[in-house]
This record gives sequence, structure tokens and C-alpha cells, in this order.
Amino acid sequence: MNFRFILNIFGRVLILLGLFMLTSIIWALVYNEEVVEELLVSSLITLVSGAGMYLLTFRNLKKELGLKDSYFTVTFTWVIISLFGTLPYLLTGAIPSVVDAVFETVSGFTTTGSSILVDLESLPKSVLFWRSLTHWIGGMGIIVLVVAILPLLRIGGYNLFKNEASGISYEKLTPKTASTAKRLWGIYVSLTFILMGLLLLGDMSFFDAMNHAFSTMSTGGFSPRNTSLGGYSSYVQYVVILFMFLAGMNFYLHYHFVKGRFRRVFSNLELRTYFGIVMAVTIGVAVIIYREGGIGIEKAIRDALFQVVSIITTTGFATYDYLSWPQEAWTLIFMLMFVGACVGSTGGGVKVIRHVVSFRNVTLHFSRMLHPNSVKRLKINGEIIDDEKVGSLVSFLVLYLLTFTIGSIIMVLLGEDTLTAVGSVAANMGGVGPGIGSVGPASSYAHIHETGKIVLSFLMLIGRLELTTVLILFTSLFWER
Amino acid sequence: MNFRFILNIFGRVLILLGLFMLTSIIWALVYNEEVVEELLVSSLITLVSGAGMYLLTFRNLKKELGLKDSYFTVTFTWVIISLFGTLPYLLTGAIPSVVDAVFETVSGFTTTGSSILVDLESLPKSVLFWRSLTHWIGGMGIIVLVVAILPLLRIGGYNLFKNEASGISYEKLTPKTASTAKRLWGIYVSLTFILMGLLLLGDMSFFDAMNHAFSTMSTGGFSPRNTSLGGYSSYVQYVVILFMFLAGMNFYLHYHFVKGRFRRVFSNLELRTYFGIVMAVTIGVAVIIYREGGIGIEKAIRDALFQVVSIITTTGFATYDYLSWPQEAWTLIFMLMFVGACVGSTGGGVKVIRHVVSFRNVTLHFSRMLHPNSVKRLKINGEIIDDEKVGSLVSFLVLYLLTFTIGSIIMVLLGEDTLTAVGSVAANMGGVGPGIGSVGPASSYAHIHETGKIVLSFLMLIGRLELTTVLILFTSLFWER
Ligand SMILES: [K+]
Ligand SMILES: [K+]
Repeated sequence: MNFRFILNIFGRVLILLGLFMLTSIIWALVYNEEVVEELLVSSLITLVSGAGMYLLTFRNLKKELGLKDSYFTVTFTWVIISLFGTLPYLLTGAIPSVVDAVFETVSGFTTTGSSILVDLESLPKSVLFWRSLTHWIGGMGIIVLVVAILPLLRIGGYNLFKNEASGISYEKLTPKTASTAKRLWGIYVSLTFILMGLLLLGDMSFFDAMNHAFSTMSTGGFSPRNTSLGGYSSYVQYVVILFMFLAGMNFYLHYHFVKGRFRRVFSNLELRTYFGIVMAVTIGVAVIIYREGGIGIEKAIRDALFQVVSIITTTGFATYDYLSWPQEAWTLIFMLMFVGACVGSTGGGVKVIRHVVSFRNVTLHFSRMLHPNSVKRLKINGEIIDDEKVGSLVSFLVLYLLTFTIGSIIMVLLGEDTLTAVGSVAANMGGVGPGIGSVGPASSYAHIHETGKIVLSFLMLIGRLELTTVLILFTSLFWER
Repeated sequence: MNFRFILNIFGRVLILLGLFMLTSIIWALVYNEEVVEELLVSSLITLVSGAGMYLLTFRNLKKELGLKDSYFTVTFTWVIISLFGTLPYLLTGAIPSVVDAVFETVSGFTTTGSSILVDLESLPKSVLFWRSLTHWIGGMGIIVLVVAILPLLRIGGYNLFKNEASGISYEKLTPKTASTAKRLWGIYVSLTFILMGLLLLGDMSFFDAMNHAFSTMSTGGFSPRNTSLGGYSSYVQYVVILFMFLAGMNFYLHYHFVKGRFRRVFSNLELRTYFGIVMAVTIGVAVIIYREGGIGIEKAIRDALFQVVSIITTTGFATYDYLSWPQEAWTLIFMLMFVGACVGSTGGGVKVIRHVVSFRNVTLHFSRMLHPNSVKRLKINGEIIDDEKVGSLVSFLVLYLLTFTIGSIIMVLLGEDTLTAVGSVAANMGGVGPGIGSVGPASSYAHIHETGKIVLSFLMLIGRLELTTVLILFTSLFWER
């Protein structure tokens, strides 16, 4: 493997990270918080480490990454930023425990949003800003990953399954993919600022607006408020619902939309399915909670819609503790954790398109049962999905279930009750954040066993990087020769 | 569709069923029970209905079944025997409610073993015999299904996935498949009698030995005793463990074994995996329950082994209420419900070979990630599994999960708690019988909502007939033209 270049990349990433970290100092100055020095030291450690790695390796650099290098680089980029990202928490004392700080940072960069913090509002705002910023950086990372690092454009023109990622030469990226990445970043940043503006029009402070905009567009879910978005006006909640939905869409579709290609957007099968699921489950949940009584129709629909969109997009914001709803309602919510957002979005999880392909494959199978000699093929958005791709999709689903199962067993063995075990694993693998059992939206992950926190951090990483990118590092195949 | 021939087949099946039913009268006479008349009437209704269907259709019969006819015939054979099979319960008053009687009979013929009966020992022995007999008949039906009706011999010489069942002409079956079916029936019957003999050598009565032999070899799980096998000696329990394990094996392997082809048996990948899972989970459970204290090593191992074999083979016998074990132990037991026995056995569920293929497919996928141009293929027992077959396997897994999910949602909507909902659906789709929550081995299904019982009966049928055989009847594709 080309470790020289890999280290060089890590160096560049850390320099970028250090610069981002510096911005949190602004808030320490604005709010007159006594953590300026600690944040400065954090940034400098990160910057100096990054610069060191860069300077050590920039000479005689062969800018080429093989397949193995790519998988390794992607996984360890997230690991390394998660380690340096703990510095602001640890040095300011906002989170004294190393395991907790790693958990919170991994949760940030993977845009999961699980938190070990109980009283957010007692923390320095600069640290809370850093916390939300990790989400936003993570979201940018995912966009570059989907567009540039896993660039095989298969179904509907996007690399859906990311399985057969061909050899990536770093130079090759420059002309087309880099410009696409920039466009999609442009959309990401623009939507963030539009959302911020809309939140400011509501009753939100500048600080809260910025934080929530970061968490929404990255489908992260950290809030600087103890009550998440529960304490805000219905206007704010509707705005956040809309932008969570947008963040869960394929960003290419936003691009097409901006370019006026409306038919291409509205005919997209994944988008239609995603919208359909949101509508169907919202109606189901709204009916259940309305029939419980005590709330009006508008509130029932708003609460249901907010939670459904929040969970399917894997954002994980809460306006209401869904676990206090009737069991039928939160069971539906829990099942959404296995649906996930659209491919090419900042959301995590299994993703809608995989469900669509699985379902279409079942239909094809029925058709083959009746007409064994037919040569019917699977088509999605006009492109053929061959059996090999379906096989790859299976691998993903099987690995997802296997990881979910093993994760749940481990959590049970660590002493968590079944619902908490299953809920925490589903919520963290899926990048959602709040789960069920004792890790619901009204609770935190503070009480989870230390080993459990490490397991969940690992699951966040696996889920965020589409499983195989990380898991392949644990195969003997990867390390042979 | 050739309804004339289908009706003719149903006629024959009902005549056979009526004859089986007659044998329960023997026990009414032996034990001097006042249900002879009712059992006689039940048998006669069945015999006359069968004869009527046969006589109506036997002239000018075109003995040919298309694909649609086959799927329809298989599904409705189970439906029809389940309807006529309720007569002994209903007419003797042993089970007064029609829904309960249908549930118990479907549970019998699908070899599931879920029961709505609470006090078995208060019922006439002749009725209990009929109950166990439904298992045994169901097991025979499954063998003929696997060997003759779904005869595409693909992986390792057996029709593993049953997906592309080619057109079946009834005559075609006669020469080879019918003789194979007879051989496997021979093994099934022989093993049943050997087991009966071994149980008689223990402290078991002739009646109990026969009933338990029926339930064991069919992996059914009905017992005529309230305490299932809990009240018997450890000798009896070990014998039952061995024969449950044998019943969960591919019956072709028994045939090879009898023919002295030992290498073929012991090198079989599915058998090795099946054995490996049993050993691994038994050790895990034994350690957990031994550490709880209060029992010796032998008892811990025996209880663990009994439960593990009982659940993985989908028999569902109990010597102990596993729900009273620590949560870690019964979580493992619950997960076994998704493993299932071997293909070609009388057991139900997903089946070990499907897990093996899924897992191998993941390995292949990793290999393709590293070597995108390799032409490596999936091989099981020396035979290539192509991508299309993997695609079919996916359909099965996706349908299994989908059915499980929808089933669980329905059970939750019917008011069951989450564990009971999930447990009852898993246990009945998987053909296991006892689940978790309020339908554990120490409870029954008596308290489940009436609609829930119908849903679970339907799930037993779907699970037993490998999902697609039943579900294809609900596609528009099946009914078009
Ligand atoms: K999230
Ligand atoms: K069973």
C-alpha cells in the first residue's frame, strides 16, 4: 500500500480539521467563555500534527491509490478526525472521559447524533458549536465520499452500491468528479445558509440557528438545546421538517432541480418511494396518536411528520419523546430506522433504493417462477440491474443484518435489556441517534457500559461508511500478500 | 388451470386423510373414551368428501399440472387438510372454537406445534393422538414436497432454493422421484419406529412414545403431556435430542449413510455448519445457565443442548422454560429461530444452507471488491451457485424479513406487546412453536387475539411452504390472463 500518500492525505485532512476547529474560538470570544486557550491548543495540536504528516511525505509523492489504499484511507480518515476531534471536549473538560469524548466525536463526524451529554445548556457554547460543526464536516465528507471516492455510476447514474469500486488514481478525480463534488458542496452550503435564514425568521437566536442548520443538513441531529427542537414554534418545526426531507434526498436531484430538470427529479423512483413512505407512516402515526386524545389534529400531524422525517432521514431530532406514544406508534418509528434516507444524501442507514431494488427483485423472482425461460431483467430508472449487482446488494443486506445481530448480542451480553440493545444498535448503525428502550429521545447514552460505547462508536463508523469499506479491513483477504 | 385434476388430487388427499383419521378411533376404543362416534363421523365426512371430489373428476382426466397449478395445489392441499383436520377437535368438543381448531390443525400439519390448549391431559387420548398424527402426516407431506413437487436438483444435488421449479408433468414423477420419495419415507417411518422403541426402553408409555416419536421426527413439537418432555428421565431427553437432530438433517444424507457413503455425509457443508452452530450455541447457553448457579454441569449442558437442538430444528419441545433463563441465554435461543434446520429435513425456517450461501456470497463480494476483474464463483459442495441463484436466495430472505416485519406490525396493532409480537411471528413463520414474550414454552397461544390466531396460522403456512409457493398466489402476475 502507498502509505506515504495515505499519510499525506491524512495530513491535509488534519490541517483542514484544525482550521475548522479554530472557528469555534470565535464563539468563545463572543460569549466571553474561558476556554479560548484550550480551544486554541486543540486546534494547534491538530494543525501541527497535520502539517507534520504533510511535510514528512510531500516529497517524491506518487499520487496513486490502489483499491486497498482507498478502503484503508476512507476508514482511517474518519478514525483520525474522530481522535483529534475529541481535543476540544477533553481539554476544555466539557467531556472528561476519553471514551465518552470519542463516542461523542465519532457520533458527530458520522452524523449519527447519539450523545452522552445530559445537560447541554451547561456547556460552553463554543464547545457546543464544535459539536454541531463535527456534523457539518461529516456531511461534507460524505458528499465527497459518495461523489468522488466511490465514483462508479451505476444505477440511475449514481454509484448506488459502491461494491466494485474500481481502481482510483488520484489524478483521475480532478476533471469531472472534483467539479461535481464542488457543485454538490455548493448545494449543501447554500441549503445550510437558506435554512439558517429561515430559522432566524422564526424565534431562533443566531447561534441556535447556525447549530441547527448544521445538524439538519448533515442529518446529524445534535442540538444545543436540552429539549432539541421541542421548545420551538411550529413554524420552526415545519421549516426543519422540510430541510430534513431535503437533506435526505439525493443531492444530485437538487442539482438537477436547480438546472430546471424537473421531470428528472419528480420521476425519480427512489424519491417517489421515499416520499410515499414518509406520507404513509406519517398518516399511520398521526392517526394512532390523535386517537389517544389530548392533542389537536394539526399537532398530531406535525409531531408525527416531524418524527417520521427525522427518523427516516436518520437525523434524529426530537420534538416529542416518541417512546411515550402508544407502542404501535413507536414500533413504526423503530422500523423506519431500517429504511434510511436516499443514496447520495447525507443520511445513513440501508437507504431507500436498496429496499426498492430488493422489492423489485422479489417481483422479478415471482415472474421467473411463472415463466422460467423469460429473460426479464431488473430495471430501475431505466437502467438494468444485473444479477451480479443484486448479489452485491444481498451482501450489503446480509452484512447489515449480521452486524446488527452480532451488535445486539454483544450489547445484551454487556447487560443491556433487549429493547435497549436492539434499539441502540439499530440507531447507531443506521446513523439515527436516539433509539428505543433506555436510549430513547428523552434519554442519552451516558449510562451505557464503557465497552458498549466503544462497540456503538464502531457501529456508527461501519454504518456510515456503507459497511464493506470498513469491514473489508477485517478480512484475511485484505491483508494477504 | 387444470382444476379438474387439482380437485382430483384434493380428493385423493382427503381419502388418505380420512383413513389416517380412522386410526385415532383405535385409541378411543383402547382407552374406552366416549368419542368414538364423533371421530367416526369426522373420518366419514372427510372420506366421503374426498371420494366425492375423486368421483366427480376421475373421468377424462388430463394428468398434467402447469406451474400455476402446482403452486395452487401445494398451498391448497395444506389448507384443505387443515380444514378437514379440525373435525375431530370440533365434533368431540375438545376445541369448541372454530378459529382455535383451525389454528391447532394448521399448527399440526405445518409441524409448527404452537398450541391453544392449556390442559392437555384433560383431553381424550384419541384426540391427542390425532393431534400428534397431524404432525406426522405434515412431515410426510414435506418430504414428498421437497423430493417430488419441487424437484429441481441444484445445489449438492437437491433443490435448495425451489425458485425456478420447472413445469411438472405428473407422469414424469413416477420413475425416479416417486421411488426416491418412497425411500425417504421409508427412512422417516423407520426412524420414527426406532425412536418409539428407544422411548419405550425409557420410562415412557406406549401411547406417549408413539406421540413423541411422531412429534420428534416431524419436528412438530406437540406433546400429550402438560410438561412436554420436562417430566422424563435424562435418558429419554438425550434420545429425543439425538432424534430431533436427525430429523433436522437432510434426509438424503440419511439415505447416503444407510448406503454406506459416509464421506459424502460427513463432508456435507450444511451438516457441518448445522452441527457447528448447535455446538457453539449450546456451549454459550450452558455457560450462562451454569454460572447462574443452582444446577450441575450435566444438567446445564443437557438443558442447553435440548433447547438449542429443539429450536434450531424447529421442533419446539421444552424441558425447561427458557424464558426463565438469563436474558443473554434466551436471546441466543430466540436468534436460533431465524436459523432453522437443514434443507430436505422436516424442519422449517430459513434453513442453514441459505445462511451458508449468504455468508459465502459476502466473502465473494469482499473478494470482488479487491479484485474487480476476477471471475471467482460461489461454490457449495463442489457445485457453482450462479448470481441468478443468489438473486433468488435474496428474494427469499427479503420476503422472509418483509413477512416477519409486516406480521410483527399486525400483531402489535392487534394489541400484543413487542416481544410477544416479534416472538410469535418468528416462532410461527419459522415453524418452531413456542416463542418469547407471552407465548413462551410455559405459556400457550390461547390468549392471543382471534385475528392474531388467523394471522399466525397464515404465517405458519407461508413459512412451511417456503414463502413463495403461497405468496405467489397473492400476486397479480399469478392471476393475469
Ligand atoms: K443522525
Ligand atoms: K415445530
